[in-house]
Amino acid sequence: MLNNNIETFIGCDAPYGEASIVLFGAPFDSTTSYRPGTRFGSKAIRSESFGLETYSPYQNADLTDAHIFDSGDLELCFGDPAMALGQIQERSQIILADGKLPVMLGGEHLVTLGAVRAAVELYPDLHILHFDAHADLRDDYLGATLSHACVIRRCWDLVGDGRIFQFGIRSGDRSEFLWGAQGHVQTQKFSFDGLPQLLERLKGKPVYFTLDLDILDPSVFPGTGTPEAGGVTFGQLLDAVLMVCQRAHVVGCDVNELSPVYDPSGISTATACKIVREMLLALS
Amino acid sequence: MLNNNIETFIGCDAPYGEASIVLFGAPFDSTTSYRPGTRFGSKAIRSESFGLETYSPYQNADLTDAHIFDSGDLELCFGDPAMALGQIQERSQIILADGKLPVMLGGEHLVTLGAVRAAVELYPDLHILHFDAHADLRDDYLGATLSHACVIRRCWDLVGDGRIFQFGIRSGDRSEFLWGAQGHVQTQKFSFDGLPQLLERLKGKPVYFTLDLDILDPSVFPGTGTPEAGGVTFGQLLDAVLMVCQRAHVVGCDVNELSPVYDPSGISTATACKIVREMLLALS
Amino acid sequence: MLNNNIETFIGCDAPYGEASIVLFGAPFDSTTSYRPGTRFGSKAIRSESFGLETYSPYQNADLTDAHIFDSGDLELCFGDPAMALGQIQERSQIILADGKLPVMLGGEHLVTLGAVRAAVELYPDLHILHFDAHADLRDDYLGATLSHACVIRRCWDLVGDGRIFQFGIRSGDRSEFLWGAQGHVQTQKFSFDGLPQLLERLKGKPVYFTLDLDILDPSVFPGTGTPEAGGVTFGQLLDAVLMVCQRAHVVGCDVNELSPVYDPSGISTATACKIVREMLLALS
Amino acid sequence: MLNNNIETFIGCDAPYGEASIVLFGAPFDSTTSYRPGTRFGSKAIRSESFGLETYSPYQNADLTDAHIFDSGDLELCFGDPAMALGQIQERSQIILADGKLPVMLGGEHLVTLGAVRAAVELYPDLHILHFDAHADLRDDYLGATLSHACVIRRCWDLVGDGRIFQFGIRSGDRSEFLWGAQGHVQTQKFSFDGLPQLLERLKGKPVYFTLDLDILDPSVFPGTGTPEAGGVTFGQLLDAVLMVCQRAHVVGCDVNELSPVYDPSGISTATACKIVREMLLALS
Amino acid sequence: MLNNNIETFIGCDAPYGEASIVLFGAPFDSTTSYRPGTRFGSKAIRSESFGLETYSPYQNADLTDAHIFDSGDLELCFGDPAMALGQIQERSQIILADGKLPVMLGGEHLVTLGAVRAAVELYPDLHILHFDAHADLRDDYLGATLSHACVIRRCWDLVGDGRIFQFGIRSGDRSEFLWGAQGHVQTQKFSFDGLPQLLERLKGKPVYFTLDLDILDPSVFPGTGTPEAGGVTFGQLLDAVLMVCQRAHVVGCDVNELSPVYDPSGISTATACKIVREMLLALS
Amino acid sequence: MLNNNIETFIGCDAPYGEASIVLFGAPFDSTTSYRPGTRFGSKAIRSESFGLETYSPYQNADLTDAHIFDSGDLELCFGDPAMALGQIQERSQIILADGKLPVMLGGEHLVTLGAVRAAVELYPDLHILHFDAHADLRDDYLGATLSHACVIRRCWDLVGDGRIFQFGIRSGDRSEFLWGAQGHVQTQKFSFDGLPQLLERLKGKPVYFTLDLDILDPSVFPGTGTPEAGGVTFGQLLDAVLMVCQRAHVVGCDVNELSPVYDPSGISTATACKIVREMLLALS
Repeated sequence: MLNNNIETFIGCDAPYGEASIVLFGAPFDSTTSYRPGTRFGSKAIRSESFGLETYSPYQNADLTDAHIFDSGDLELCFGDPAMALGQIQERSQIILADGKLPVMLGGEHLVTLGAVRAAVELYPDLHILHFDAHADLRDDYLGATLSHACVIRRCWDLVGDGRIFQFGIRSGDRSEFLWGAQGHVQTQKFSFDGLPQLLERLKGKPVYFTLDLDILDPSVFPGTGTPEAGGVTFGQLLDAVLMVCQRAHVVGCDVNELSPVYDPSGISTATACKIVREMLLALS
Repeated sequence: MLNNNIETFIGCDAPYGEASIVLFGAPFDSTTSYRPGTRFGSKAIRSESFGLETYSPYQNADLTDAHIFDSGDLELCFGDPAMALGQIQERSQIILADGKLPVMLGGEHLVTLGAVRAAVELYPDLHILHFDAHADLRDDYLGATLSHACVIRRCWDLVGDGRIFQFGIRSGDRSEFLWGAQGHVQTQKFSFDGLPQLLERLKGKPVYFTLDLDILDPSVFPGTGTPEAGGVTFGQLLDAVLMVCQRAHVVGCDVNELSPVYDPSGISTATACKIVREMLLALS
Repeated sequence: MLNNNIETFIGCDAPYGEASIVLFGAPFDSTTSYRPGTRFGSKAIRSESFGLETYSPYQNADLTDAHIFDSGDLELCFGDPAMALGQIQERSQIILADGKLPVMLGGEHLVTLGAVRAAVELYPDLHILHFDAHADLRDDYLGATLSHACVIRRCWDLVGDGRIFQFGIRSGDRSEFLWGAQGHVQTQKFSFDGLPQLLERLKGKPVYFTLDLDILDPSVFPGTGTPEAGGVTFGQLLDAVLMVCQRAHVVGCDVNELSPVYDPSGISTATACKIVREMLLALS
Repeated sequence: MLNNNIETFIGCDAPYGEASIVLFGAPFDSTTSYRPGTRFGSKAIRSESFGLETYSPYQNADLTDAHIFDSGDLELCFGDPAMALGQIQERSQIILADGKLPVMLGGEHLVTLGAVRAAVELYPDLHILHFDAHADLRDDYLGATLSHACVIRRCWDLVGDGRIFQFGIRSGDRSEFLWGAQGHVQTQKFSFDGLPQLLERLKGKPVYFTLDLDILDPSVFPGTGTPEAGGVTFGQLLDAVLMVCQRAHVVGCDVNELSPVYDPSGISTATACKIVREMLLALS
Repeated sequence: MLNNNIETFIGCDAPYGEASIVLFGAPFDSTTSYRPGTRFGSKAIRSESFGLETYSPYQNADLTDAHIFDSGDLELCFGDPAMALGQIQERSQIILADGKLPVMLGGEHLVTLGAVRAAVELYPDLHILHFDAHADLRDDYLGATLSHACVIRRCWDLVGDGRIFQFGIRSGDRSEFLWGAQGHVQTQKFSFDGLPQLLERLKGKPVYFTLDLDILDPSVFPGTGTPEAGGVTFGQLLDAVLMVCQRAHVVGCDVNELSPVYDPSGISTATACKIVREMLLALS
Repeated sequence: MLNNNIETFIGCDAPYGEASIVLFGAPFDSTTSYRPGTRFGSKAIRSESFGLETYSPYQNADLTDAHIFDSGDLELCFGDPAMALGQIQERSQIILADGKLPVMLGGEHLVTLGAVRAAVELYPDLHILHFDAHADLRDDYLGATLSHACVIRRCWDLVGDGRIFQFGIRSGDRSEFLWGAQGHVQTQKFSFDGLPQLLERLKGKPVYFTLDLDILDPSVFPGTGTPEAGGVTFGQLLDAVLMVCQRAHVVGCDVNELSPVYDPSGISTATACKIVREMLLALS
């Protein structure tokens, strides 16, 4: 009797019932305006995670000691963002309802909206930590309000002023920066300056943590739709991710915008895998 | 005084007023279900056409003798297919209203629907010639009715039974073939068998000609979202295209599904350029 | 309660107990002498099969009607061919012992030896049908007797003279051809000439069918370690594969030598998927 | 009435008459000795600039407020460097004669010579600021005196001792460094050390600024003919470029040596676009 | 005592004195007007030939029985075509003076001119057989008379009317075809029709054979600067090459226009290697 | 009389008798567990070294003044690690016996074992300096004891406790780190901290220096089998390499794990070439 071919992120093979963290993929990129391809991100992360070890010398911890279930990728409808967001929201609701922590792998950044909708239902005082190269604060993009370029603005529709904190931002149109500066969101350009202080302030508050990997410098992470020169280093991002996952009350998170088709050497996927491993270990 | 940098398909630089044919690009691929990237097709065709000559030794004719205007690419909204189709329809209407022939460069195959909507307004007895590897006859795809996989079914909504003729089809689900065989569309699997007879029968009827380049064998045309082994050769397609453009009363046409990102050697784009040149010369 | 993430070749999701055919992957390429990478072949075929339909317009048949179980990839030891062959043999034995047909996805061609060892135990009068660009008849390669370049010679060690039939061969050193011509194996250079007659002759005999995909022309199948110009077309291979699977008493088979890393456009993987689908349907 | 398809670097669409800066491309790489392909640099920068925003969060300024005209690419003769340099000189002369600032996009570094010839006619006391990985001070290269490897030596022929200042240099043959050190040019190896002091000293002097993008580390800028490990970071280059453009009396400048064919992920082109945007804003 | 690292085309290791055929590479592409890179062709052919066998099942012959010396690549000056052609001519003269047959590996097609100059000195009644996709009959290209697009015109300057025979031509501007048809050259469009008859007619005449590999269909040979859809198959080219090399009195020949940078799967280089092997065996 | 085509690393063309350093390549990667391809590393380094200068502005020294012989690549048996290691050991023995310094270019890291075996014969008190991202301390990998993942463990079998010093390590399974920390090897995670002190301590001791290039950050060196985010910069590695080669009594060394197939832009090979040049100059 041969077994089924079950595929997971490396070391994430706990039974669902015993898991405290549940991974899922949201392979969607229909609103990407420049170079599409992030739909293949979650699958690549799962598949290439086997180039990693389960052990982290950074945290001296091992995924084989954590209890994580990988529920695979959603099958999302391309061309209908509203329907796709509904499916993401539903998956997040199931995981949250079972008292587990959802960790979503994108996909483009718009997928965050589905997960945030589910989180804000459960945690009305939700705060959002946003690591990204792009402000994503447009009200619409070429007429579409459900767009990767508007995702944080849509999250703001749900949580309101003073609840969203951006780091690493180095691109946007002028109006986005102006709008944000009117007290709607708190934006730290270019760096993680102020993150420790913020985490101190957010102690005990429920936090949704969304990580757009294009915050990384394109040298480290070329495989993304809209590479922006001048990003943070891997070490800087790793430190910040560990800080957030260890100090904040994270109630949901995601890692998005890996586009393997623009990553011919595979270093972006390998980097994404490592960030996910460290995040999972820090959240465990 | 220096000139503006006007970019066109090679040799397509007639003033709009004097042109009998008008090119435009429809860079859209939001509903692509497998590998996106056709949004870059029209731009690549325009740009790489300069690797071609304007002269065709096949037809002993030269684009410098034709009168063609290239109006560039539309700026379409990713993530909202209905809005994008509206923009395509409008551009087609303008060209048709000015008594010119619209030739659209995709983009994914869904863009055809916008152009067919415009054509059927003017020509209620429109017939459709469809060259493709895929039947594209689904009623919906994962819930979406505006999808590249449904485009010919949507065209059938407009023109009805007995007006659509497919050639080269070698992929689809069983229900598509069954539905088509109920008298809705006429499907020639694998080849162009029967094309001369059909063209004889369509004499004088207005024809919209939609060419999905993935009808070509993947060896000739690897750069497409869903390559299907077992396609036609370049010579077979060239003969068929010339036959259609010279014998049928073509009132609109398009060439779609080039995805340059999957074409690292550039042969797919070069092939698309040559097909477009021959089509334009045959339509002139 | 969320489900495990089970991955299979498209449509091959029968329970093991109900399956008549069992797929497995043998990701091994340690003896490849030129360009390695076929270790990623089986995984790519499984993953990219979702760009296919389950329905074949060639055979008017559907994988959803077949009963096939995909048991995933073996975890093989790189650097120790003898150990890897042992693992392959064992997996084949299990499947054969359960009265099911093993279909193995390589990996390099050496993996065939493990499966043939298992088959010849059960079927001492085993015959071997070998489609390939290369003769693979060396007695050793740079000193190694367990090498992809020697695999058919090693099979001959097991089945003896007059039991091996090669088609499409267009590369080898002079001594291989001379050795084969001494009555050891029957070699049809370049083409499938004589295949129907052979199949007539083999009626009722147990046949192991090994398909090295580099028999295809490199234009159709660039993604392989040692591309050899002048191969067969997809149509020719499809016809030959269907003929074998429909007429011969196939007791084991494999498809090997896809190397996705040399397939940047993805057409080789797509072609391999289609051949596997057609083979599975014809064997069902 | 449809419009012509005018293509410009993003936001550079002022009418020529109103422009203070004029962009043009010099797609030439015939003397490149290692890996050619910079001929595609200017076109890629123009095309991919649409992945950028017009707004710079570094300078809090927007290209839509600047007045820049993009006159497109010259059509240069490959295989005849003297003729190509003549065409570049002529285009530069026109722009300078109209009292505008020419900004040239290469192409290989030799193109600088054409622009410097035009600048030195108007500004006999021209000084040259040279950012590069390579010294480019050979008197000839394999017999050719018009070569990318000799371009700064040829500029020295025009401006003489003490007028050329190099930064970031980390490659050259021994004789180049020795020749330079004889008082002909001032060379800062590896870094921008001394740049602020130099700019102080050059106050009021006319400066031609030539930026070979291979000064950047290959991790940041792989897409160039001769990548040299150990280059400057994006942040270091950005600071230096802004310093030059804001403090020096720049009368002409160029950005060269992007080779898109060696940039499969697109990060080099994206970085080049961003440097050009920042340069244009700082010069405005 | 360790040996020097001598690199040759596979099996071409005869001492110079004993060789009847001498290979050399001409890595030059400075006049290439579209996509450069053929400078890497000769080196790639030499290097990748080790993926081949020395034995040909087509001719039942082995390079180990031939006497061929590989003299490596010339070091040519990029940016000065006249100087490069002089170096090629000189190398050809040495080989011819020693009574050996020169076989040159390009590089772009212009390199043929250097070899033809040497051949016509020795054989004033030289005839030229030209296999190509492109007519190469322009009198100048953007002002340059020494250009790959003019190479056969320049050869005509040397040999005059009625001595040049082209096959497979499928691209050129109108004036090239018109000029050729005025009795200057004999052009067979698209195919090898008439080749056997021509070879009969050329019996005993000295023939220079120049093979531009882009005569092949781009599916078979994507790795070239200007791919032209609709070319000949590998089988057709192989037959034609064998016919020429076996029946004509070949006094010099070349194989050119492989551009490895546009050949990510390596099939173009592998095909070039095989054509070179077959040509060498047929000439032996 | 034409010369043989001798290929060397740039500037390494001393006669064997006069050389103090001897280069050789060990193109082997059969035990690579993740992405193979390092077999092409040594050849790529030799070939692409011609994109470098022979002069180092870092050391103000020139390879033309050194006396180095490049003996080319070994022809190793894929699929039989023991046999391959024997061939490497033998080549190293010859070089050492002639009183010269062997510098080996890999290949995968396992090749180090062959060279260390030869070195330890001559220098029983051999110490090993190991720069790497990976600990390589497993006792076996999937059952194989001769594996790239076990190479330093196998070296420990030869030299014993306290003789192996690792730097830059950032990956391994938990048991490797635990085993090492039991006094078997000294491991500096992530960085070169402590290297100067160690070199002081090793004064006069014979040192084998093995450099796995994946110690570099993947942004700098993507072209390797198992990229690990968070590596050292080029500047850090260069400093450390110069320190080792200038201060330690190096009796053998190697540079390994370049995999050109994962290096589409070529920056990894270019970086490897530069490191080798600097190492050779520092060892001279």
